[in-house]
Amino acid sequence: MTTIYNFSAGPAVLPKEVLQQAAAEMLDWRGSGMSVMEMSHRGAEFMSIMDAAQQDLRDLLAVPANYQILFLQGGGLGENAIVPMNLMGASPDATIDVLHTGSWSGKSLKEAQKYGKVNVVASAADNGFTAIPVRDSWRLSKDAAYVHVCTNETIDGIEFHTTPDVSLETNGAPLVADMSSHILSREVDVSRYGVIFGGAQKNIGPAGLTIAIVRDDLLGRALPYCPSAFDWKTIADNGSMYNTPPTYAIYIAGLVFQWLKRQGGVAAMEQRNIAKAKLLYDYLDSTDFYANRVVHDCRSRMNIPFYLRDESLNADFLSAAKEQGLLQLKGHKSVGGMRASIYNAMPLEGVQALVAFMQEFAHTHS
Amino acid sequence: MTTIYNFSAGPAVLPKEVLQQAAAEMLDWRGSGMSVMEMSHRGAEFMSIMDAAQQDLRDLLAVPANYQILFLQGGGLGENAIVPMNLMGASPDATIDVLHTGSWSGKSLKEAQKYGKVNVVASAADNGFTAIPVRDSWRLSKDAAYVHVCTNETIDGIEFHTTPDVSLETNGAPLVADMSSHILSREVDVSRYGVIFGGAQKNIGPAGLTIAIVRDDLLGRALPYCPSAFDWKTIADNGSMYNTPPTYAIYIAGLVFQWLKRQGGVAAMEQRNIAKAKLLYDYLDSTDFYANRVVHDCRSRMNIPFYLRDESLNADFLSAAKEQGLLQLKGHKSVGGMRASIYNAMPLEGVQALVAFMQEFAHTHS
Repeated sequence: MTTIYNFSAGPAVLPKEVLQQAAAEMLDWRGSGMSVMEMSHRGAEFMSIMDAAQQDLRDLLAVPANYQILFLQGGGLGENAIVPMNLMGASPDATIDVLHTGSWSGKSLKEAQKYGKVNVVASAADNGFTAIPVRDSWRLSKDAAYVHVCTNETIDGIEFHTTPDVSLETNGAPLVADMSSHILSREVDVSRYGVIFGGAQKNIGPAGLTIAIVRDDLLGRALPYCPSAFDWKTIADNGSMYNTPPTYAIYIAGLVFQWLKRQGGVAAMEQRNIAKAKLLYDYLDSTDFYANRVVHDCRSRMNIPFYLRDESLNADFLSAAKEQGLLQLKGHKSVGGMRASIYNAMPLEGVQALVAFMQEFAHTHS
Repeated sequence: MTTIYNFSAGPAVLPKEVLQQAAAEMLDWRGSGMSVMEMSHRGAEFMSIMDAAQQDLRDLLAVPANYQILFLQGGGLGENAIVPMNLMGASPDATIDVLHTGSWSGKSLKEAQKYGKVNVVASAADNGFTAIPVRDSWRLSKDAAYVHVCTNETIDGIEFHTTPDVSLETNGAPLVADMSSHILSREVDVSRYGVIFGGAQKNIGPAGLTIAIVRDDLLGRALPYCPSAFDWKTIADNGSMYNTPPTYAIYIAGLVFQWLKRQGGVAAMEQRNIAKAKLLYDYLDSTDFYANRVVHDCRSRMNIPFYLRDESLNADFLSAAKEQGLLQLKGHKSVGGMRASIYNAMPLEGVQALVAFMQEFAHTHS
C-alpha cells in the first residue's frame, strides 16, 4: 500500500504511535475495564489523565506558575467571542486593538466588534496579505483593553517569527495570541503574553478541544453576560471541570504531549519544522512552475500556500497527488491554489515525497 | 476476567460493538488512509460521516422536516446560556419560565437570570426533589419567551413520562427541553417542543458534543452579543460547520445511532429500558435495606439514585461492588448515596448483576 501523507490544515495528521496506542486502549484503558470515553470525568482514572495532560503541556511550553492552563470547547472561532467576553468586564469602554494579518485575525476583528470598540492596529490588506505590516506602521491605542494577534495565519501562510512587542505604547495592555495553527511547533516565551489560545485540531489533537493559557491577573474580568461555561475564572476555579470537559480529546492531546516529550520537546520539534519548511520553500523559490507569494521573513513554517502558475492544471495536480498518497493539498476556498500544512506530526519524509512529486509534476507538465 | 458493568452517570458506558469498530478503524477509516480524527471536516470522507449521523438521528427520533439538527459544543451547562442568548433577541423583556425539578433545571434557572427575567413555574424544592410538582400548581407566564424543562433530572432521578403541556396558558410559548440524560431512550413527539438539547456524554457518545434540535421559526432570535459560534442560525446556515465541529465525537455518535437502528430503534430500546428499570425498582421496593425516595410515577428509567438505610456501609458497598466489576455507583456529591445510571448501552445483564450483588450485600450485612 502507498504510504499516505495527509497535508490537511486541520483536523490534521496525528502521530501514528498515538493512534496505535489509542486503538490498543480503546476497549480497556490500562486494566480499568473502561474505554477512556466511558469514564466519569471526576473518577480517579480520568483525573490522572487530565492532570498529566496539563502538566505535560506546562512542561512543554514552560508555562510559568502564574498562568492557568484551561481545557475548553468552541474552537478558535468560539474564542473570538469568549476572549472579549472575559476581558472587557473591567473596562467595557476600552478599545480592543487587533492586528489584521489574514483571514483568522480578520474574523477575530469582526467578532470583537460585538463586545467593544475595535481599533485596527494595522492591516495586511494593504499588501494583499503577503506580509505582516511593518512595526512602524502600527497604530496602537494608549489604553487598550488588550491587543489581539494571530501569530500564525493558517489560510494566508503568514507567521510571526518574533514576539510582537506592544508594551510601550499601550501601557502594558495584555497581548492575546491565537496560536491555533502553530502552538507547540516552536519555542515561545509565554510570559510575554496575557492569553494564548488555540483549537487543538491543527497541531495538538482532535477537534472539539480548545486550549487557553491565561495569566492569573486576567481572570475575573468577564462581562456580566459571559456564559458560566465559558468564564475563564469559573473554569479555572473548577480545574476545567465546571462542565464535562471533552474527555477523549483531552486523552488524545495528552498522548500527543507525551509523544512530543519523547521527540525531545518543543525545541527539537522546532529544528525539524525549520528543516521541513526550508525544503519546501527552497524548492518553491527554485522554480517558476509554482509560487508562494508571502514575503520571506513572514513565511509560515506550518502552512505553506502555493499556486501553480498555470491554474488550469489545479485539478490534475490534486488528482495526481492523491494517487501518490499525498492528501488534502487543496488550498482554502477563499484564496484558491494549494496548501501544504506540515504540522509537528508530518515527518520530513512526507515533505520529501511532496517535493519529489511536485518536481515530477512540473517536469511532465512544462 | 470479571465482566465489567459501568454505571457512570456520564461520560458513560458505550456499546461494545461501537468501541470495537472504532478501534478497528482508528488508523485507517475504510481505506482512506486516515483516522477520522485526521480528516478535514470539509472533505468528502467526513462529510459522509456527518450527513449519515444527522440523517440517522432524524430517523431515530422522527424529527419533522421543519426542525434543524445541530451539532454543537459546550454541553448542557453551555446551553443554559446559549438557549437564552438564542431566544431572547426578539423579546428581551419577556419572561423566561423555568420549571424547577432538580439540580439540572436549577442550574438552568440560575444561568437564565443573566439573560432575562425568570419566573419559576413551580419548584420541586417544596417536596425535597422527589416529584415533579403537580400540574395544577404551575404558574406559567402569559407571554413567556419560552418555557424551560429538564425532562430527566440525572442527579435527582426524576423523569417526565408525558410531554409537559404548557401551550394554553402561555399563548404557545416554545417549550425548551434539556433531554441530556434520556434522549433516545424513549419515543418523543418532537413536534411538541420548540427546542430539544442534550450533551452527548450520557446516552449518545463522547463528551464534547452537544446536540440541539431547533424548530425553524426559532432561528434568528439571538441577542446581539450571542457569539457567532453559538448562534443557532449561523450554525444551521453552515450545516454545523461554521466552526470546526467535534469530528471524532460526531463519528462515535454516528456509530451509536447505527447501533440503535440495529437494535430496532428507539421504540425497541424503550421496551428494554422499561424492563431494566422495573427490575431495579422492584427490588428496591421489596427491601428495607435500600431506598429510592422518588414518587413512583416520576421515577427515572435512566438514573436511579438509592440509599443504604445504614449509610455507614456506603464505602463497603462501593468497594465490594467494584470487586464484582460493578463500577461508578457512587451518587452525586450533592445528594450522596448511590446511583445506577442504566442508559441504552447498559445491557439487562448489567442490571441483573447489580440486583444480585445488592441482594447478596444486603443478606451479608443484615
